[in-house]
Amino acid sequence: MNSVASDVIGQTADGIDTPAVVIDRDILERNIRRLADYLAQHGLASRPHIKSHKIPEIARAQMAAGSVGITCQKLGEAEVMVDAGLTDILIPMNILGEPKIWRLIALMRRARISVTTDNLIVAQSLSGAACEAGFILPVLVECDTGQGRCGVQSPAAAAELAQEIARLPGLRFDGLLTFPTSRTAGEFMVAATRLLSDQSLAPSVVSGGGTPGVWHSHEIPGFTEHRAGEYVFNDRNIIAAGEAQPEDCALRVRATVVSRPTADRAILDSGSKTLSSNPGRGITGFGLIVEYPEAQVVRLTEEHGIVDLRQCRRKPDIGESITIIPNHASQVMNLHDVAYGMRGWSVEVAWPIRARGCVR
Amino acid sequence: MNSVASDVIGQTADGIDTPAVVIDRDILERNIRRLADYLAQHGLASRPHIKSHKIPEIARAQMAAGSVGITCQKLGEAEVMVDAGLTDILIPMNILGEPKIWRLIALMRRARISVTTDNLIVAQSLSGAACEAGFILPVLVECDTGQGRCGVQSPAAAAELAQEIARLPGLRFDGLLTFPTSRTAGEFMVAATRLLSDQSLAPSVVSGGGTPGVWHSHEIPGFTEHRAGEYVFNDRNIIAAGEAQPEDCALRVRATVVSRPTADRAILDSGSKTLSSNPGRGITGFGLIVEYPEAQVVRLTEEHGIVDLRQCRRKPDIGESITIIPNHASQVMNLHDVAYGMRGWSVEVAWPIRARGCVR
Repeated sequence: MNSVASDVIGQTADGIDTPAVVIDRDILERNIRRLADYLAQHGLASRPHIKSHKIPEIARAQMAAGSVGITCQKLGEAEVMVDAGLTDILIPMNILGEPKIWRLIALMRRARISVTTDNLIVAQSLSGAACEAGFILPVLVECDTGQGRCGVQSPAAAAELAQEIARLPGLRFDGLLTFPTSRTAGEFMVAATRLLSDQSLAPSVVSGGGTPGVWHSHEIPGFTEHRAGEYVFNDRNIIAAGEAQPEDCALRVRATVVSRPTADRAILDSGSKTLSSNPGRGITGFGLIVEYPEAQVVRLTEEHGIVDLRQCRRKPDIGESITIIPNHASQVMNLHDVAYGMRGWSVEVAWPIRARGCVR
Repeated sequence: MNSVASDVIGQTADGIDTPAVVIDRDILERNIRRLADYLAQHGLASRPHIKSHKIPEIARAQMAAGSVGITCQKLGEAEVMVDAGLTDILIPMNILGEPKIWRLIALMRRARISVTTDNLIVAQSLSGAACEAGFILPVLVECDTGQGRCGVQSPAAAAELAQEIARLPGLRFDGLLTFPTSRTAGEFMVAATRLLSDQSLAPSVVSGGGTPGVWHSHEIPGFTEHRAGEYVFNDRNIIAAGEAQPEDCALRVRATVVSRPTADRAILDSGSKTLSSNPGRGITGFGLIVEYPEAQVVRLTEEHGIVDLRQCRRKPDIGESITIIPNHASQVMNLHDVAYGMRGWSVEVAWPIRARGCVR
């Protein structure tokens, strides 16, 4: 893969065989800088989530912009990032089971790792791991503030679990975490922080997250830190949320029109295994074709994209390469082994997507 | 990855860290044998599609059961399979662009490759490649018989393109191809075959495909060959189509309950990057939990599965491992690097999913 990938460095985008993920480095750098500046201006620490890009080089760029550390969703992602020299990683996941506990201990010996829990069973298991490793493990309490996923259900439950964590050997209660940052989440966090402060357990960190609402984080009291992922790239979901324009989208998929079976239909060499079958939030279709914005990517099969050209005055020819802004950039990155870093129209670097597929 | 993967050989499924893809080899072998017997009984050649499993060892098992060759959707998949010793591969894709043409020539030097086209531009490009390689390239005409994807639109157009192919140097018109096999497809194929026979260009191969309707293929005249993919595993889509029972599903995803935030909710360590966000056809939810069939996997985020337990009398505990039949096995295989081949409850082999991510 890598030999093929590096063959095109210095060439133009036209030299890249399709389908391929291309990343505009100017836009990427601007997106990283913009969020870093915004969060710094409002006194919020930045701990970007690498799930969206899974590339160590981009994580390092996020650190260089002033992040306090990174967020990885899975231990496997954290292992890749520690191998690449990242040193401060939050894993907001209930880590359970002997194989994972051993891997956590190994990671704690190499980097500052913090984790979350929403229950005592996980906390007790983490306590055992920390004692085994001979380290103090910082633990945040995950709070369900409306997402309906993991998390304690009330500020009182958060305070109660924090007390249990503080009593367990090897653990340090570090703070609170939720996803996404919202007004309701802020109210939950303020209430929980008050309860904890009354019990002399004031949280050091109150961590929120998400890209869609990130530019309103400063209006929501109760947080000290923000975890954003998608902001490095942006995508159709973020455009639909009103938080980005196509020119803010760093990640594109290059595809080729392989068939024009009818006057109103084009077929791409890119299907759900390239663009993901993620339907997107509040949008129809599976991608925005930059060169033909009136075209609709109406359906994906595994290796084909079906495009409706009825609204297009100009229509693409067989063999033509086009550029797609996908619905959900994170899902796209998880399907590919390599992404091409572009400077303008020129291929500057081929990045292996090293943490791709690290589901364990 | 592989060192970790092979560590669990000889252990039980409980020794596998989750999430993980496990494949019941008894069911897999039964599924392969059953389709081979059925197609042989009805005089149809079998050319299974490896997109569903992407594992050379399974392709070899399909060949050992009497297949005439295999089908790969992308050149990259074919390269993996030729590397693994497979010798007869159909790539039903319009292959275009210089990088792919060079790879096609390289493959033609190592195996019997056949391809499809639905237009003259691709046919002319293939002719150039075949002349360059010094081989005769067998080409099938892809027909759109109702799928609305690639393909010529009428039997007359199929016959016309076949004539063009027959005239181009380096190419041999080999037959017709469509997806999926259906009554309408059969009528199209019979009509096209009649036209071609009248022009002394009778097709050697008329290739249909698909798993959902495969057991009715013998009732549809006009085909000589069948390409089935999903049948090796089966999944919730195939169950919903009435063509399989849960005990026919060879592929399962092992997952762990990491949180029980409320009495009626469980959270799995498996989200859309493990199970895929493929919504399935005519089904709700994102997988069937074998141990808790009343549970509903109602929502996936990237690394979490949200399970509604309201219909369950017995409910899973935190830390418990469960087994999921996914909606679409092909999509799951494309997300993972390794699959564990099980004999009963024991891990017999760790298969690298070698053609995963071969989108080019």
